[in-house]
Amino acid sequence: MAELIGNAVVGQSGGPTNVINQSLVGVIQEARKHKHIQKLLGTRHGVSGIVKNDFVELNDAPDELLERIALTPSAALGSSRDKPDAEYCKKIFDSFKKNNVRYFFYIGGNDSADTARIVQELGHSQGHEVHVFHIPKTIDNDLRVHDHTPGYGSAAKFVAQALIGVDKDNRSLPGIMIDVIMGRNAGFLTAAAALGRKYPDDGPHLIYLPETKLDPEKLLADVDRVYSKLGRCIIAVSEGIEALDGRAYVEVLAEKSGKAVDRDSHGNIQLSGTGALGDMLADLITTKLRNPGGKKLRVRADTFGYLQRSFAGILSKTDAAEARLVGQKAVEYSADPKNVQGSVVMTRKPGSVYAINVHLEPIQNVARLTKEFPHEWIKDGNDVTQAYIDYAMPLVGELPTVGSFAELK
Amino acid sequence: MAELIGNAVVGQSGGPTNVINQSLVGVIQEARKHKHIQKLLGTRHGVSGIVKNDFVELNDAPDELLERIALTPSAALGSSRDKPDAEYCKKIFDSFKKNNVRYFFYIGGNDSADTARIVQELGHSQGHEVHVFHIPKTIDNDLRVHDHTPGYGSAAKFVAQALIGVDKDNRSLPGIMIDVIMGRNAGFLTAAAALGRKYPDDGPHLIYLPETKLDPEKLLADVDRVYSKLGRCIIAVSEGIEALDGRAYVEVLAEKSGKAVDRDSHGNIQLSGTGALGDMLADLITTKLRNPGGKKLRVRADTFGYLQRSFAGILSKTDAAEARLVGQKAVEYSADPKNVQGSVVMTRKPGSVYAINVHLEPIQNVARLTKEFPHEWIKDGNDVTQAYIDYAMPLVGELPTVGSFAELK
Repeated sequence: MAELIGNAVVGQSGGPTNVINQSLVGVIQEARKHKHIQKLLGTRHGVSGIVKNDFVELNDAPDELLERIALTPSAALGSSRDKPDAEYCKKIFDSFKKNNVRYFFYIGGNDSADTARIVQELGHSQGHEVHVFHIPKTIDNDLRVHDHTPGYGSAAKFVAQALIGVDKDNRSLPGIMIDVIMGRNAGFLTAAAALGRKYPDDGPHLIYLPETKLDPEKLLADVDRVYSKLGRCIIAVSEGIEALDGRAYVEVLAEKSGKAVDRDSHGNIQLSGTGALGDMLADLITTKLRNPGGKKLRVRADTFGYLQRSFAGILSKTDAAEARLVGQKAVEYSADPKNVQGSVVMTRKPGSVYAINVHLEPIQNVARLTKEFPHEWIKDGNDVTQAYIDYAMPLVGELPTVGSFAELK
Repeated sequence: MAELIGNAVVGQSGGPTNVINQSLVGVIQEARKHKHIQKLLGTRHGVSGIVKNDFVELNDAPDELLERIALTPSAALGSSRDKPDAEYCKKIFDSFKKNNVRYFFYIGGNDSADTARIVQELGHSQGHEVHVFHIPKTIDNDLRVHDHTPGYGSAAKFVAQALIGVDKDNRSLPGIMIDVIMGRNAGFLTAAAALGRKYPDDGPHLIYLPETKLDPEKLLADVDRVYSKLGRCIIAVSEGIEALDGRAYVEVLAEKSGKAVDRDSHGNIQLSGTGALGDMLADLITTKLRNPGGKKLRVRADTFGYLQRSFAGILSKTDAAEARLVGQKAVEYSADPKNVQGSVVMTRKPGSVYAINVHLEPIQNVARLTKEFPHEWIKDGNDVTQAYIDYAMPLVGELPTVGSFAELK
């Protein structure tokens, strides 16, 4: 079978993660072992670098540097929020043709997968074959088909470790603590707040995911119940939490208090990089609930923000190894000319010991649509089940050791 | 010389740190070696547990548990924000007399030191001697006499690692990023944002401490200059930053936009547990600055909040060891009946290799007043000098390894 020989482009897209560079390094190191890839070009800032011809040659990058880059948070090549339309895809293809690019490795979420698919189809119809491989990454963990996605385990580890600390802090100086966690549509990352619980009264005591609409009356009743029992209450809430009418909760709260919500360049309500939701929820609780005796409650809100996806030094070893693996595998798959496109997918082997299988899935099964946090893993609309914890712990790995004087008795 | 023999109380006070339990464990383990201490009582929630007779007996706590507690963030005995007046101090003393308490080890900031001093004087005048030892802790690093305080190194490490990630995230998806860092009056923790910089264009590009009044015109000019040069800008700002008129900046911004500021139970403006300052600064920049061509800038604000002081798993080894040491030393000092009171102080040995001396300092030299970030370590009102970095690095220890493709050229 005649091989397709030519140059390759690798790029990174969307919100960065702590292990997206592991996948990049997996691609670079594996590409050196294969003859079908001549020059390996890293595109700066995703698709944007392709159309601007802004590439960095990666073939000769020394391993010492690559191993340091692999440990560095966020996208070393730069990322992009561009969502290419047909015309943009055409420009990408033109650049590929001009640069004799025959392979495109795109590390990103479901939008990136779709871009890659369109470019492959363009190439096929125009007589310049480009084989495209989507390498999954997203802290949201919301890709279909994939058991989980690289980036999730490390972000989940950050959230779990944060909540271990938040619980101890809140025990020490009791009050009501609201932690706002990333996740516009999927609750996987917020659910990770539960992973560090060890003692029966450990927080978070309430967990609200975007998959469940949030009724403010239920929230207040939940908080009141926990606070009455424990004298404190920790709430983990997704930034994308929705009100009963399906609008973003932050929008509903803003309307009530006559404030405006910020929107990003795509017209989406700005959820990250602002403390608005946390502060509004704190206001709601402070206004509606009181200590016995009528004293004002101590209510605080922290929004974890970009630290969740880019904090240097918090890595899940499993996540890092898997992110490297899916990068390598993408290049391996590309060596077979029958593989014209696909997303590298990890599925979980059945059995009690955690292990994965990797396969190449047609991109159309991955692109566009995302998956939700399974409803059967949501408990009482304000917590997660043990089944979720069993699912997530192998992805996150070891959490810090803690102790409490409660063990003395 | 006749020894003073009796029971001892150990307590934790104020905002917790990631190593405050190291000091506690240092006290417990050292107390077992000395005959002058009979029962060692841990008071729950600082001075509050003393007056409520809410103690836990610590003599027989197993080492395995203690070592886990030492690694656990925040105050394992619980903390307190109470600032005892004369009447409260009298109640503390009455409890000490009733429980035959002769030694009081109080782990806390400068207010805690003062409480201990008052109790010692009361005991002396009332004929029931209580020897009191202040064990320093504060992430603010603002105790006088002390070269640095336990808790600072670990919190500074968190901030430094956070900023390494923020820088990479902001390179990947460029824009203006504001990071609000703890510190009502002292800029030490915010200054730590500089510690992870490696490449010449690494952020934070602007650092504003409470020791320098912040002129909004200067801020906007600074941001404009950095953004014009780099196409991005990372700002690290203390939550306690003050306006030109000496008021908290958050208060001035709130007034301009007709909002109310929240105050805590002591009447202080609430700085932590809210995203208000960050969001207001983001608004200011968004309103006043524009991209070339008039396009809205991408401005985001994260407020690090309680994660800075309680995140599980981020510890400076030096900080942890020193926190343990000052706890041990306090008990050692108490074995000499000549030492009726004192604060355990670390000073730095002269020389190029980092090493400390420990001594006991009269509490009155430590209590009440705090120290500022040295003005000679502030550069151009928006950065810190190499002298600060040389001071802080031994306290923080190793930071995560990073790499960049910029090294290829």
